[in-house]
Amino acid sequence: MRLIGPNSLGMVNPRIHFYGSFATGLELGFPEPGHVGIVSQSGAYGAHLMTAAVASGIGLSMMVMTGNEADLTLGDVVNMLVDDPNTKVIALYSEGIRQSATLVSALERAREHKKPVVIMKVGQSALGQAAALSHTASVAGNDRVFDAVMAELGVIRVQTTEQMLDIARLATRGIFPENNTLGVFTVSGGAGVIISDAAATHGLAMPAMPQPAQDRLRELLPFCTPTNPVDTTAQVLNDMSLLTTFTESLVVDGGCQSILGFVTYTATAATSGERVREALKTVAQSHPDRLYVLNAMGDAEKLKRYEENGFTIFEDPSRAVAAISAMGRYGQAFAEKPKRVAPTIPPIELPANTPSEAQVKALLSQAGIAVVPETVCTNVDAAAAAAAALNEPVVMKIVSPDILHKTEIGGVLLNVDGEKAVREGFERLIERAKEHAPQAKIDGVLVAKQITGGVQCLLGVQQDPVFGPMAVFGLGGIFVEVLDDVVLHRCPFGEDVAMQMIQGIRAAPLLFGTRGQPKADVHALATMLANLSAFAVAAGPRLQSIDLNPVFAMPEGQGAFAADAVITLTSENSE
Amino acid sequence: MRLIGPNSLGMVNPRIHFYGSFATGLELGFPEPGHVGIVSQSGAYGAHLMTAAVASGIGLSMMVMTGNEADLTLGDVVNMLVDDPNTKVIALYSEGIRQSATLVSALERAREHKKPVVIMKVGQSALGQAAALSHTASVAGNDRVFDAVMAELGVIRVQTTEQMLDIARLATRGIFPENNTLGVFTVSGGAGVIISDAAATHGLAMPAMPQPAQDRLRELLPFCTPTNPVDTTAQVLNDMSLLTTFTESLVVDGGCQSILGFVTYTATAATSGERVREALKTVAQSHPDRLYVLNAMGDAEKLKRYEENGFTIFEDPSRAVAAISAMGRYGQAFAEKPKRVAPTIPPIELPANTPSEAQVKALLSQAGIAVVPETVCTNVDAAAAAAAALNEPVVMKIVSPDILHKTEIGGVLLNVDGEKAVREGFERLIERAKEHAPQAKIDGVLVAKQITGGVQCLLGVQQDPVFGPMAVFGLGGIFVEVLDDVVLHRCPFGEDVAMQMIQGIRAAPLLFGTRGQPKADVHALATMLANLSAFAVAAGPRLQSIDLNPVFAMPEGQGAFAADAVITLTSENSE
Repeated sequence: MRLIGPNSLGMVNPRIHFYGSFATGLELGFPEPGHVGIVSQSGAYGAHLMTAAVASGIGLSMMVMTGNEADLTLGDVVNMLVDDPNTKVIALYSEGIRQSATLVSALERAREHKKPVVIMKVGQSALGQAAALSHTASVAGNDRVFDAVMAELGVIRVQTTEQMLDIARLATRGIFPENNTLGVFTVSGGAGVIISDAAATHGLAMPAMPQPAQDRLRELLPFCTPTNPVDTTAQVLNDMSLLTTFTESLVVDGGCQSILGFVTYTATAATSGERVREALKTVAQSHPDRLYVLNAMGDAEKLKRYEENGFTIFEDPSRAVAAISAMGRYGQAFAEKPKRVAPTIPPIELPANTPSEAQVKALLSQAGIAVVPETVCTNVDAAAAAAAALNEPVVMKIVSPDILHKTEIGGVLLNVDGEKAVREGFERLIERAKEHAPQAKIDGVLVAKQITGGVQCLLGVQQDPVFGPMAVFGLGGIFVEVLDDVVLHRCPFGEDVAMQMIQGIRAAPLLFGTRGQPKADVHALATMLANLSAFAVAAGPRLQSIDLNPVFAMPEGQGAFAADAVITLTSENSE
Repeated sequence: MRLIGPNSLGMVNPRIHFYGSFATGLELGFPEPGHVGIVSQSGAYGAHLMTAAVASGIGLSMMVMTGNEADLTLGDVVNMLVDDPNTKVIALYSEGIRQSATLVSALERAREHKKPVVIMKVGQSALGQAAALSHTASVAGNDRVFDAVMAELGVIRVQTTEQMLDIARLATRGIFPENNTLGVFTVSGGAGVIISDAAATHGLAMPAMPQPAQDRLRELLPFCTPTNPVDTTAQVLNDMSLLTTFTESLVVDGGCQSILGFVTYTATAATSGERVREALKTVAQSHPDRLYVLNAMGDAEKLKRYEENGFTIFEDPSRAVAAISAMGRYGQAFAEKPKRVAPTIPPIELPANTPSEAQVKALLSQAGIAVVPETVCTNVDAAAAAAAALNEPVVMKIVSPDILHKTEIGGVLLNVDGEKAVREGFERLIERAKEHAPQAKIDGVLVAKQITGGVQCLLGVQQDPVFGPMAVFGLGGIFVEVLDDVVLHRCPFGEDVAMQMIQGIRAAPLLFGTRGQPKADVHALATMLANLSAFAVAAGPRLQSIDLNPVFAMPEGQGAFAADAVITLTSENSE
């Protein structure tokens, strides 16, 4: 026997008339049987959600409030709903994930079964103190991790209850166009502009009608605007056959996957309502593979008949566009090809204590991550020889497992040129290290090639307490620290995902060639990022974070090199 | 006699039973008299708006659809509504502004009369081709100009009809807290988190309850969470006096200006509805100066009684928070002190043709805008002398009214050091200019101090066809061109507004000291920006654009200097 709760408001299954809940909201009306399964970790908010769903005409297959999740968690119930033939759409309300592996695999199954999932996850909590040691941690906040994981799984995360119910309601139509396009007919030019603006905001394509179709429509109604939106003007009220013709043309000639009609009060007004419905009904019946949405208002019973004819009703045009756009996102997620698999790398064994930079780079090299050519030198002659071999100028850095932030103690020298400078630099670094950290074990001085040119990037990994290692990509310096311009993804992943991440930052044009700059070697960057993701998994749970900062992305064909690398381990306390 | 229209759906004044409109929407019900005045440039969408307003229980003082505005424009009707004692709130739908001066002065009058204005403005059009000549133009798109002007005038611009009606409905309460704070009581912890998240999104403060008040509440109900949100748990259903006490404590102890209660279906359920209403009513009656909002649902007649008791009802918590936040923005706009006046500068006379860089800088100097120390040299000896006087290294640039983009023809040399290099540079620049632009009139070579350090900024002005000269501020290079990180404001303005603009970019931390960098001389920048705004107005309508790019903002106390300056004039064709 399995347990829901404790501290739960129970569950409801309208199909079998099971109302195992003491939510007062049921006083306002019992849910009708339907195809949306709702799971909520909150009792009171879950009951609010259920009542709001009833009020907006959504039928439920199941409503479960998981409470404190002593046994069954959110993921378990999602798994159940994936298997439930009456559930076509899954709507989740979450305040925090327990057993993320169960949830992730349940969400993966939902995608395989083409059951759309919409989630509202509230609350933002800071990462633990231990995590604040690295740059990566400061940008990989919890909430952003959640966003990244849901996007990866094809789950749509919403901010408000209304968005959730809008999407759930429309999704019950079961139409999820892989390449969504929107065709709009409207009796108001103004509404057409509102809808076009909203479609642009949501990245929903509104292709123009083919010219022959435009010509034909203009012949029928000379003062119409037949582009898309197709503005029929109020003339359709005088000749309803126009409404049928224009709408059908969006489907047949325009090939639009989703149709949105702005008919507002004419849908229900006594003088026009029935005629509008008849004119539209024939189109939906002839082409049942498309998604039909109407902006309409008025008497609820009259609107219900439109719903029965295949039209989902939204009063507000902007909300309609948002929901239609979501159906396309599901379509893409369901059609997504399996991602290229993560690179295979040899087993990684982390040392017992925080590794030095040289150790880190040796470890990373095993995973095929290129570092700037360099040598650790234990005496001044070796340093001079190494510098000469690298063709000065060079960068010199103190090497010590006990000094993580070298810059702060003056432990990094840039642009060291000439033997004399190299020899002086060596002595100075040893001195500074002894002065600022007398207890530190000093392994020597690293002599590395001074890289000029290239775009500085940050590649990192942060162990998330819920979802495990998360890779982070951004440009170096202010882009991460001031502009917060980063993307995240669960580890591991292949080069295709890595490339999507690289393309996903706002500052991506700087890598792909802009302002007369050459294109950077983004393929080398993608390889490095994918290898890093495999490394993070291979390193196991003792890995707390990795910071490759900066990584120099050189011009195309010239590679990418990590110039600095820090790995932190989980402390025993935080285990 | 004045004219509304043509091509208008007419107007409606419910108070005098005047329904001068043939909108079919009136079949669904006539508007009740009320205090919201709606003006729409679209007929069909205006009628939709009116019908949606009726459906959401908003009473109207006036509904005017201005159509093609052959005579009366949006601004004229706003002016009328400002004077109409029955209109407390003004809601506008616009597709394009005619006679912006009338609209701006009407909106200024609305603010003086403390009548909140909410506007939905749709459609985005590109600026004319002529404007695309300057960097500034590419970032000062029409829509962004409109945003900036509305923000300046204290008007809230919304994206959707729902946002407009939510704000209009709540604004009829006439309560606009200057320093808005939100106190929340809830019967659901989950809802408390949703509301807190939404408040954070909207920048609405939710101060914690004072400790003594928390202690007292916890004594009354040991398992409550009395911070803010105050989570009373469902226990209030057993003892309604708790609801009164907790709510009143948010008002009296917490001093919250706005109160939001999440009571959902308990507001109307047969077993709890009346008791909840009585418990809350007493608080609103005792403290009528606060804004009261409830998240509730259920029977419309029952909810109406809450409205009569002073509580505005929203089903969705996120929408409620958005509307409450808007009331605070009105409060701030109404309380705003008159801005410091724009600097006074001597009259500016633009030359007949596009001025050269040297001419531009001379003009700007008249307005007190500091440029990098420099001299125009007509022969090589003068150049050598100038470089010596400026303490080399110097920057050298070709000076010609016919060459606007000097970099593209290699007409700029950086870091020229030593007399020999200066002499060679002079000859090379003259040569290149002759080679690339044989027809160009060459005025000489500019020799300027090479500035090192400082933060590079862009200060610009762009003539907007609707609102006149708009000032633009951002950081140089990629911040403007890739990250689109700029702020705009109508010209002219004082240093206080200029400082707000500087603080308004996302990358502002780079100017105010971050990552070990010194704070830049933002006061000098603000002075320059204010002077530039006065210059733009003084220069008159022939000014098309100004680009000061880069401007070097030096460390605090060391000033700001324009290193390059371009002015373009409106061509005769575009006049």
